[in-house]
Amino acid sequence: MRVRIENVTLVTTDETNRVFENGCLVWEDDTILALNDFSVHVDEVIDGQGGLLLPGMVNTHCHLGMIPFRSLGDDCPDRLRRFLFPLENAAMTRELAQASARYAAAEMMLGGVTTVFDMYYFEDALAEAMVEMNMRAVLAETIVDFANCDSDASYGGLALGERFIQEWKGRHPLITPAIGPHATNTNSAEVLKQAQAIAERCDVLLSLHTAEMDYEMETFRKERNQTPIEYLESIGLLSPHLVAAHCIHVNDQDLALMAKYGCRIAHCIGSNMKAGKGIAPLKKMVAHHIPVGLGTDGASSGNTLDLFAQLPLIGKAHKTANHDRALFPAKEILPLATIDGARVLNLDDQIGSLTPGKKADLVLVETQSANMFPIYDPFSALVYSAHAGNVDSVWINGVQTVKHKQLVRQDLRCLREDLEAKMQFFKAEALRRSEDL
Amino acid sequence: MRVRIENVTLVTTDETNRVFENGCLVWEDDTILALNDFSVHVDEVIDGQGGLLLPGMVNTHCHLGMIPFRSLGDDCPDRLRRFLFPLENAAMTRELAQASARYAAAEMMLGGVTTVFDMYYFEDALAEAMVEMNMRAVLAETIVDFANCDSDASYGGLALGERFIQEWKGRHPLITPAIGPHATNTNSAEVLKQAQAIAERCDVLLSLHTAEMDYEMETFRKERNQTPIEYLESIGLLSPHLVAAHCIHVNDQDLALMAKYGCRIAHCIGSNMKAGKGIAPLKKMVAHHIPVGLGTDGASSGNTLDLFAQLPLIGKAHKTANHDRALFPAKEILPLATIDGARVLNLDDQIGSLTPGKKADLVLVETQSANMFPIYDPFSALVYSAHAGNVDSVWINGVQTVKHKQLVRQDLRCLREDLEAKMQFFKAEALRRSEDL
Ligand SMILES: [Zn+2]
Ligand SMILES: [Zn+2]
Repeated sequence: MRVRIENVTLVTTDETNRVFENGCLVWEDDTILALNDFSVHVDEVIDGQGGLLLPGMVNTHCHLGMIPFRSLGDDCPDRLRRFLFPLENAAMTRELAQASARYAAAEMMLGGVTTVFDMYYFEDALAEAMVEMNMRAVLAETIVDFANCDSDASYGGLALGERFIQEWKGRHPLITPAIGPHATNTNSAEVLKQAQAIAERCDVLLSLHTAEMDYEMETFRKERNQTPIEYLESIGLLSPHLVAAHCIHVNDQDLALMAKYGCRIAHCIGSNMKAGKGIAPLKKMVAHHIPVGLGTDGASSGNTLDLFAQLPLIGKAHKTANHDRALFPAKEILPLATIDGARVLNLDDQIGSLTPGKKADLVLVETQSANMFPIYDPFSALVYSAHAGNVDSVWINGVQTVKHKQLVRQDLRCLREDLEAKMQFFKAEALRRSEDL
Repeated sequence: MRVRIENVTLVTTDETNRVFENGCLVWEDDTILALNDFSVHVDEVIDGQGGLLLPGMVNTHCHLGMIPFRSLGDDCPDRLRRFLFPLENAAMTRELAQASARYAAAEMMLGGVTTVFDMYYFEDALAEAMVEMNMRAVLAETIVDFANCDSDASYGGLALGERFIQEWKGRHPLITPAIGPHATNTNSAEVLKQAQAIAERCDVLLSLHTAEMDYEMETFRKERNQTPIEYLESIGLLSPHLVAAHCIHVNDQDLALMAKYGCRIAHCIGSNMKAGKGIAPLKKMVAHHIPVGLGTDGASSGNTLDLFAQLPLIGKAHKTANHDRALFPAKEILPLATIDGARVLNLDDQIGSLTPGKKADLVLVETQSANMFPIYDPFSALVYSAHAGNVDSVWINGVQTVKHKQLVRQDLRCLREDLEAKMQFFKAEALRRSEDL
């Protein structure tokens, strides 16, 4: 099946960041075939109605199971340890996590995200949900130093995670398994090394939260006189397998180490700023040629799972932090959400740009809404004007999942009703515990 | 005509910031009559479908004529003087400014803004546009030290501005005239004093840009050894008439002065951060009990004219700047966009909260979209999850202007076509000049 979409501006985010006004794109089954070639015979023609066609966006850090936490105790200090972890342990179940993941996938697609790197529990159930939703995903079972909703034993995630990788490696074109020790300070050195051994043995990515929390920084300084990144190097965790989430508090030496070992970074500007944690040094990361993608974090921390909410913040936060209006022009911000994210996930041979041979992960942004006129520069329009509600259509692996702002293959209302039904106990617990905040 | 909207959560932003789940609101003609009183006889009942009903938002700083500049030269340093002013002088006309103002009003309404404080040129034409659009507006003719699109003489805005005030004062319930000397550094002391005399003589607000630019700060320090606020005090410009836009670079002493004289501030966080200018000290402004509202600035600087884009940024920027997650919880952020904005514009006896006796300026935010579930806290949902695309319906002065995400009284496509037709020369000039950037 060959399809051509025409009457669109192609915003390719390819090697030279090309833009083609009034262009067209042809794909065959799951693969992009040609740009701007009207001579290729096609079975179907889609009118893009003057919209902007981009590669699907890549969310490099998310927690799919955490939709039930959205808008809960948002402004509470040390919320993770005082509130989120205990509530998760008391009330999160496989069924709830899976229903949440379906809903999260729907929200992401509707906002133009086509690939997600998840770190949560019950990853086998989440993988099924992602297949069902036709969403591309890298999935990592979380490993923590306490018994949790997915395991009666501390560090149960190690065995669960390895089994998940074995079961899902090469099994489905949309799913890539990985491993996810929770953070530098919620895993022992021994367990972090075991997780690293799994990553190397199975050749998968390893993601963890690091250099994120004030108390994390203080503890590593006091107990080891190291930064978290120096510590990770000392125990062999720095490698091309590593996708380090946050990295708010990294210095030049840390970044030089990360660059030397080929590590990648998931930059979660919205989540970090909302928690008052700080602004990660993106300018320096880029200067060190470290692949950096954008992450929404979970709905508990980032509230929405679309990258359109992150794009303007990237410009605003880093221009302000560096007191430099010209820094990170819009044309350098959009690729962070596409090709750079793909690089972070080792998927840049498959996705991240409108390039023949890559997978047909496509997002059509309409330009009919009031905020999308005039457009002198499509990058500016996408970075500073667009919001998730401007996404008109989405294709993942050649399959349309969103059409005219509605899910094609599911009904959002049904996904919500299912999630709500499974949330009853969680919600009661959440309300009870939030009274103590 | 009495109308009741029911099946809504009322987010009142009244004195005690009350919220009523499953509430109702009754209005008669242009005035709110009752909250949660189902016994009042009404002529029409509207089903709010479980949405959130808020007071219309108040945009305290905007330039209605600047829609044609959106997405143009966004990341260029000293853009205002190198690019925007010259282009405005070369290609802005009364007809273009008016068409832009209609479009801007449409964009604002569709995003939940019902009142705007504008500072631009051709204010008599913009007043007509606002009446036509049924948008509430405080309108100030700009005064600058050079001949401009609206005047062949420098400071022509002084006479134009006073005439505009005389013509529009008390003429229409939606329109309040004001006066707008452009900035501390684009007007002589003498002209600023004349503008102040107009404000006092006519009893209107006076707005200017101040403490915004690095070169402004340097010049005042070098030439007068003063801050811009100290300078304004020394020439008699600090008064309850003053709505000072930006105030990025104000110190404790400046704020004490502003508080002492009863000044107000329009805080434009998005525009300020996108230009890398800095983060105004909102925490201190609030501590000094200075009324502070939110402003989008023009589409040239802020890109979109909705306050939903400003709300999350307020939390994120100020929590981060103060390294304090608990600072500005969501329930303190939303009122900045409603009642505090009304206070800034001296309209808090009329608008800014869902309070019987106030004008029926109402915004219904739908909760059906993916990003709006679950909602434990409507403030969190509105501040951290919602975007302009979630606005379902809007009433201004009791008249519905937006219904199910579409304009009621105009066709957005027609407004755009009209604007586009009037933009031809402007666009050609813009493209020619942007090549030099
Ligand atoms: Zn996370
Ligand atoms: Zn301005």
